[in-house]
Amino acid sequence: MRAAILAVGTELLSTDRLDTNSLRLTEALERYGVLLERKLVVGDRRDALVAAIRTLAADHDLVLVSGGLGPTTDDLTREAAAEALGRTLALDESIVEDLRRRFKAYGRAMPDVNRRQAMVPSGSTVVIPNRRGSAPGLELVEPSGTTLFLFPGVPNELQGMIESHLEPWLAERSGGLRSERVVLKVAGMPESEVEERIAPAYEELGREAISVLAGTAEVLVRATAVGTDAERRETLERAERRLAELLGAAVFTHREDETLEAVVGRLLAERGETLVTAESCTGGLVAERITRVPGSSEYFQGGAVVYTNRLKRQLLGVPAELLDIHGAVSEPVARAMAAGARDALEADWAIAVTGIAGPSGGSETKPVGTVHLAWAGPSEVDHRRVRFLGDRERVRRLSAQVALEGLRRRLVGG
Amino acid sequence: MRAAILAVGTELLSTDRLDTNSLRLTEALERYGVLLERKLVVGDRRDALVAAIRTLAADHDLVLVSGGLGPTTDDLTREAAAEALGRTLALDESIVEDLRRRFKAYGRAMPDVNRRQAMVPSGSTVVIPNRRGSAPGLELVEPSGTTLFLFPGVPNELQGMIESHLEPWLAERSGGLRSERVVLKVAGMPESEVEERIAPAYEELGREAISVLAGTAEVLVRATAVGTDAERRETLERAERRLAELLGAAVFTHREDETLEAVVGRLLAERGETLVTAESCTGGLVAERITRVPGSSEYFQGGAVVYTNRLKRQLLGVPAELLDIHGAVSEPVARAMAAGARDALEADWAIAVTGIAGPSGGSETKPVGTVHLAWAGPSEVDHRRVRFLGDRERVRRLSAQVALEGLRRRLVGG
Repeated sequence: MRAAILAVGTELLSTDRLDTNSLRLTEALERYGVLLERKLVVGDRRDALVAAIRTLAADHDLVLVSGGLGPTTDDLTREAAAEALGRTLALDESIVEDLRRRFKAYGRAMPDVNRRQAMVPSGSTVVIPNRRGSAPGLELVEPSGTTLFLFPGVPNELQGMIESHLEPWLAERSGGLRSERVVLKVAGMPESEVEERIAPAYEELGREAISVLAGTAEVLVRATAVGTDAERRETLERAERRLAELLGAAVFTHREDETLEAVVGRLLAERGETLVTAESCTGGLVAERITRVPGSSEYFQGGAVVYTNRLKRQLLGVPAELLDIHGAVSEPVARAMAAGARDALEADWAIAVTGIAGPSGGSETKPVGTVHLAWAGPSEVDHRRVRFLGDRERVRRLSAQVALEGLRRRLVGG
Repeated sequence: MRAAILAVGTELLSTDRLDTNSLRLTEALERYGVLLERKLVVGDRRDALVAAIRTLAADHDLVLVSGGLGPTTDDLTREAAAEALGRTLALDESIVEDLRRRFKAYGRAMPDVNRRQAMVPSGSTVVIPNRRGSAPGLELVEPSGTTLFLFPGVPNELQGMIESHLEPWLAERSGGLRSERVVLKVAGMPESEVEERIAPAYEELGREAISVLAGTAEVLVRATAVGTDAERRETLERAERRLAELLGAAVFTHREDETLEAVVGRLLAERGETLVTAESCTGGLVAERITRVPGSSEYFQGGAVVYTNRLKRQLLGVPAELLDIHGAVSEPVARAMAAGARDALEADWAIAVTGIAGPSGGSETKPVGTVHLAWAGPSEVDHRRVRFLGDRERVRRLSAQVALEGLRRRLVGG
């Protein structure tokens, strides 16, 4: 099955917006092994829309359109689809009734303009109910066998119809075959090293079965399998086991949606231990990431953001002479920050970060990107010096990532 | 002039990646008043690429292609363009020489595979030098008058060619007309109120001249003018003045790339005053945003992230009885946090945030999204209670935004 995606909306041709709906549609296609051949964006112009729908319907078996189903005059997808496919439009009274009920539930009368949303193309057409908004979706089957879905552009309305309608439609046509994947997320290892480590798996499992996606100090390794339930399970279990073996302790989760801070939080909660932070160059980013996790108050006590030497002394008890002799960005100060935070703020673990995020403040011996990290735990204080390349934001993000990954390794005893 | 953008690359059809290059190309088009009619993404497949280039070249005056100019066999843009336009490809020895020099500069011999990058289509063709990478760009002029640009997909290489080649090309054809815009950024005012306030300007300046773009607790209002230098200046000055008048103190900057935290920092630096933060539900986000700004150590001293009541008492001196009687999320505690931070951490200004970010922790009297903010300054402590709707991340982001905007208003005396 050859599929195309069409996003409709002049705003999607601007400098500010991208068609992110296509990512959700692509996810559904991939899950059922359908190949996406092209993506197209056109504005709210009838001629362009008619031409696009006509071409896509001629060249593909499945065309997924999002946007342009609203009630206003620049919502043209219904009319353009009807014209492109040589169909007529007629008012569907049952949709009008639905819309009236919907508005009434909010204590309002249905504006006349919304009648446009009840126009349905002739021929083989299925109306897709919208539980989250006023625009119903439409499924149009052409004599050629091509199916077009017209979905609303509002993301959560689209998502509702993907789940209620598109996925079951794809499942029915997949012959029991589905695509599924396992994910291993790696922190603190460059992409090139990940590639090197998993090289044997490429040979054993097939190059196209494995994909590597690099983020900021985080690499996602995915293995994909297409087949029946039993086939997939076997392939994926083998792939997951092999990749885990090759990547070792660098894997922090096997769940695509689990963040490093969530893993650290889970480990702390499991052990019933607490954490505090002491941050200079990251300016609160480590604490902010830890507290993104719902329930983090169970283990996170708080932290100190200490931009000045005065606050490093006052809040963390860093000795003035260490600051004088070694400077704020140094191993002794990082260690003193971590130990001081653990003692003064009272927790089982403390993370400390001090560094030069740039763009200024660097020197020959301590260039921009120099960061000292320390972890104080129940038995010892560890330290690591890193030199990151990149701009201020990148240095800060990498620092926070290494800080969290360092704690995770210590919590799992790596 | 009717333009289209084509992005080439199978990875751009995945669930992880979007064609962001098109945003840079669109910027250049908009600057010279060229209308973008459609955007298309196709994978690294020769037939799809040939069909796409053929259709776009037939329907548009200007086709901007990015990607697929690399040296490997799945880089097919050169071959596909030649086939689509009925041209032949020939090796350009001067490009080979350039590539050899480039590799030599890195102490390497040019791999044979890179010779593919020296293949140039016959007919009216301009080779665009690439100062940042190995893939030269190509400008192909068709007998129909349509021009196609083939650019590399690597963002900074593309950006280089936009500046060195595409913009001068567009300028030459614009007849001295350019599009330019002014921007007013607004914080702490809902989009609907912004729209209401600027309604008179829609009438006076024309609806299509003004656009409103909503972010998280931040709204961008833009006025665009097309014309000669003198015409633009007059229109934009008038628009900027009028919009500023209508929006009043809610405008925090007239610079598109200036953030709220940068404005707050600028105001503090100008006054020679200092800032500390005291955060509970935002968990360090306010401090993190302030320290994103290069040079923030000039005015930012540091802050306390106080997730527990113990740390609220210990670091900020919040009286235990206030916490007992009113709870951590209350006006008295927010005020005590701000005043305590200002005193204990020693600064001219302190921001305090305490709230219930959710998803749990809410109650009937203090539902999820309840946030108390306080600002302590040289003369007084102010407080504001807000109820935000949305998930944990949204409540935290909105809280930080209101915290910073509240400080800005106080710094400008609003």
